[in-house]
Amino acid sequence: MAFDHRKYQAFKPIRKTDRKWPDKVIEQAPLWCSVDLRDGNQALVNPMNVEQKTRLFDLLVKIGFKEIEIGFPAASQPDFDFCRKLIEENRIPDDVTVQALTQARPELIARTYEALAGAKRAVVHLYNSTSTVQREQVFQLDKAGIKSIAVRGAEWVLEHAQQHPDTDWTFQYSPESFTGTELDYAVEVIDAVSAVWQPQNGQRMIINLPATVEMATPNVFADQIEWVCENMQHRSHIEISLHTHNDRGCGVAAAELGVMAGADRIEGTLLGNGERTGNMDIVTMAMNLYSQGIDPQLDLSDMADIIRTVEACTEINTHPRHPYAGELVFTAFSGSHQDAIRKCLSRYHEGDIWQVAYLPIDPRDLNRRYEEVVRINSQSGKGGVAYVIEQSMGITLPRWAQIEMSRLVQLETERSGKEISAADIKGVFEHNFMAVSDEWILHTYDIHRTDDSVVAELEIGTGQKLQGEGHGVIEAVVAAIQSNFDLAISIENYDEFAIGLGTTAQAICCLRLRNASDDGAGQMCSAAAIAEDTTSTAIQALLTGAARLQGQISAAGFRQLTSEAVLV
Amino acid sequence: MAFDHRKYQAFKPIRKTDRKWPDKVIEQAPLWCSVDLRDGNQALVNPMNVEQKTRLFDLLVKIGFKEIEIGFPAASQPDFDFCRKLIEENRIPDDVTVQALTQARPELIARTYEALAGAKRAVVHLYNSTSTVQREQVFQLDKAGIKSIAVRGAEWVLEHAQQHPDTDWTFQYSPESFTGTELDYAVEVIDAVSAVWQPQNGQRMIINLPATVEMATPNVFADQIEWVCENMQHRSHIEISLHTHNDRGCGVAAAELGVMAGADRIEGTLLGNGERTGNMDIVTMAMNLYSQGIDPQLDLSDMADIIRTVEACTEINTHPRHPYAGELVFTAFSGSHQDAIRKCLSRYHEGDIWQVAYLPIDPRDLNRRYEEVVRINSQSGKGGVAYVIEQSMGITLPRWAQIEMSRLVQLETERSGKEISAADIKGVFEHNFMAVSDEWILHTYDIHRTDDSVVAELEIGTGQKLQGEGHGVIEAVVAAIQSNFDLAISIENYDEFAIGLGTTAQAICCLRLRNASDDGAGQMCSAAAIAEDTTSTAIQALLTGAARLQGQISAAGFRQLTSEAVLV
Repeated sequence: MAFDHRKYQAFKPIRKTDRKWPDKVIEQAPLWCSVDLRDGNQALVNPMNVEQKTRLFDLLVKIGFKEIEIGFPAASQPDFDFCRKLIEENRIPDDVTVQALTQARPELIARTYEALAGAKRAVVHLYNSTSTVQREQVFQLDKAGIKSIAVRGAEWVLEHAQQHPDTDWTFQYSPESFTGTELDYAVEVIDAVSAVWQPQNGQRMIINLPATVEMATPNVFADQIEWVCENMQHRSHIEISLHTHNDRGCGVAAAELGVMAGADRIEGTLLGNGERTGNMDIVTMAMNLYSQGIDPQLDLSDMADIIRTVEACTEINTHPRHPYAGELVFTAFSGSHQDAIRKCLSRYHEGDIWQVAYLPIDPRDLNRRYEEVVRINSQSGKGGVAYVIEQSMGITLPRWAQIEMSRLVQLETERSGKEISAADIKGVFEHNFMAVSDEWILHTYDIHRTDDSVVAELEIGTGQKLQGEGHGVIEAVVAAIQSNFDLAISIENYDEFAIGLGTTAQAICCLRLRNASDDGAGQMCSAAAIAEDTTSTAIQALLTGAARLQGQISAAGFRQLTSEAVLV
Repeated sequence: MAFDHRKYQAFKPIRKTDRKWPDKVIEQAPLWCSVDLRDGNQALVNPMNVEQKTRLFDLLVKIGFKEIEIGFPAASQPDFDFCRKLIEENRIPDDVTVQALTQARPELIARTYEALAGAKRAVVHLYNSTSTVQREQVFQLDKAGIKSIAVRGAEWVLEHAQQHPDTDWTFQYSPESFTGTELDYAVEVIDAVSAVWQPQNGQRMIINLPATVEMATPNVFADQIEWVCENMQHRSHIEISLHTHNDRGCGVAAAELGVMAGADRIEGTLLGNGERTGNMDIVTMAMNLYSQGIDPQLDLSDMADIIRTVEACTEINTHPRHPYAGELVFTAFSGSHQDAIRKCLSRYHEGDIWQVAYLPIDPRDLNRRYEEVVRINSQSGKGGVAYVIEQSMGITLPRWAQIEMSRLVQLETERSGKEISAADIKGVFEHNFMAVSDEWILHTYDIHRTDDSVVAELEIGTGQKLQGEGHGVIEAVVAAIQSNFDLAISIENYDEFAIGLGTTAQAICCLRLRNASDDGAGQMCSAAAIAEDTTSTAIQALLTGAARLQGQISAAGFRQLTSEAVLV
């Protein structure tokens, strides 16, 4: 049987009795280090060329990264060349420190310093594997042997730095595969390295703790970090950095809980590129801070540019549901979500604290638009449809018309089985509320008010004249329609309002008429009209409603819907 | 300024002083409920048609889901129709319970029971929104008003169930937007609902706690779950279910820590489809359990079928780095990773506990292959190249040849800037070790051993005869070559071994010759030959090496590499 869990064993967590991190809350951004150009690049089917690397480096600088790992120059000629290019072409801003990875071998360390020669400031990042599996199966060395690899590496790193005093060197050491390393042994190796580099005497030093493979729930990782921070020497002189991977889908969680547990610095990549399941996604973690009112110290507002550049450099597309970045993440499909979003957005005023249901952040902050928020399909309710009409036509429909439109749109989407566009929703509205045959189009009107009544004279269609009298204009127009067309109608709903602002604004009238004649069986019909003059608007809406009640609808220019959809 | 974190406020966590969950470890699978056909479907640009829904339902059953939310039948005619189809066509296995979502309105609850009529067993899933934002901005009701929506809903659910006693009903209630609800109020509503349903008297009842929007780090969610479990009534009679979303990229972490905090049941979808950033991915969470030696109670071994079906139904592609499922997650590019994987795999015996660096699970468990593990590009070291040659040619190269091949492959990939295929690596080996012009091909040989020496007679090329004498065959052949071609050579490395098993196996000879003549400047050249007869293999390798030392290499049939690559 292929699928057999008994082949695996559970990760054994430490039993921590004095755990402090679950009471902590992250209150400021960590130091960020991008490893896009090293770990990210190493994990690509086609590694980046010089042009792609340069483009990505420039983006990282623009976003605001102050530490950028630019490669593994001793292991790859292109990485070496890129390193030289950045330094020799003076492309590294004064406030940015580049970092280069190296294994703990003398020729590789020498080559790394050769690659970094001339940099104003640089991090030399030394690593060796310390986990049980690596010691026993890969290196076949005991704990002392593995530790001595680290110590000798640290010594060589120090010696070369002393030979190149013009660069401001930072030393970084990673006990690679830290998550699979016994904690006390990890601390033993870390202490042995810091005994060489002596951070207490002023040498800047970083200890980076990689979840090279994510091996347990993120709380276990946080326990590991807290334990190391409490048990290592010179903690106050050493920056603790984390480098998590996403094998269990919890890379971001592990980094966040790890910061709560004491880490100062985070290595990761934009959108999580990296070996296998990827590195920790700095976009997500930084936006998580941002959404809590914390300055992430990175400017991610031009998210479209970030996505475009990362995709062009990695040849990997962004998933449509990627937090903060995916195409669908500011989209709501279900009616109740759309309705809630619409209500919250209508109450939001610029400068308020953001409090919008289902939208953890304002899409505009990432140069996304509200219009993208609502898409309408058969799962959408009235709120979504109303929102789209509001956005595309500037019309806030009255509630009865919202309900009717949502029924019409649902019939259309259930028929097609597809999403419906804003333009098609507008079409559904125009077809079902506004379309009318030419003979019902209002041309001129005269309204005469006498002492106790109003007389309305209308000319419609190809010159037909109607006349009616009532207590007001509406009643007079209804009388004119009734007497000329042998029709009995009552107005069930009537809403007239301006579209937009100012005296030149157009008005819309939405109404619902009932056939009040004996054989009309109470048939209902909705109608709407738009014009610049509010009186014209009202009269045309009544004419349109009457025409539609009689089935005299022009289909010209409008898509034919299902028959039920035409008369509601 | 668009990018301004001051627009947001931090989530206020509860101060929990008696937290227990960080000491817990998940030791068994939770109850799983798939919401692919409801929450997942609601979030699609194009909702699934009946055929797609049926295909996905059948997959969910095949994988082993025992609870499946099949839709929101009161809100969508297609959902209603699908529900009826499953029941009327008797497609629901006896051990599977279907679940339908409904809002707390009487006509919708009635319609839900209509949709579920005739099911053997079903969960009626009632929800209403309880968060502060929803109460104040969307519903404009106070706490009592929102609670009474839940209570009246619960009463209607109970009444309808009593009218349909032939189905075995389970009642589920979700305080929707739970993560944004004051905890004491959430418990107040939950208790009010359970006072109606009375789980203590035998009614099966589920309380589902949705992170409708993920609002804080996953430890905060776990605190919320633990608090509710400790403070609600009838805890022992009610199943606690979680339904997390991925807005902060931590949906899986929240579900895992939530189970540690006391939850019994998990709602989610395959590969995380769902509104915005998606639901919790059940594939990842179940595989996380599996990788810890815990039976996930779901059979995910046919991962290709799962991916194919989900993609066909959702029209959303799986990200290449998706945990356990992505195209690249069992692939290692960097040399040190490849080397470590290769060493661990060579030590692994069937039946052992899985302990392979960089591969948290055995790819074969998901019907993936080891061959996919290693891809070679300019970032790869000798281990990866050696692995590919081992896999594609069945040859375990000696260490000196590994080093040489990795240099050759790196030159090639640095030149092309691309990944190199297994076939092209084989080509690099053949071109640089085996290619030789026709006049150096061995045809026949005679070996005569006398008392103190061996005489070798060779016929090569178009009939040229060589003869030499030495203490053994190799020495005799070297002597024959030297005397006939005025060449001084010494053998620096020599390895001959069988390819495959049995007496008919071919042999390969890899060797490295040095030009020992005065003007040869110690030039080195590697060569290899493959033949069925070990003596032929050795002689041909020597001939090939001698030819190559003289630059007499046939390029026919092989790609021309850079000049440095030809002679090492």
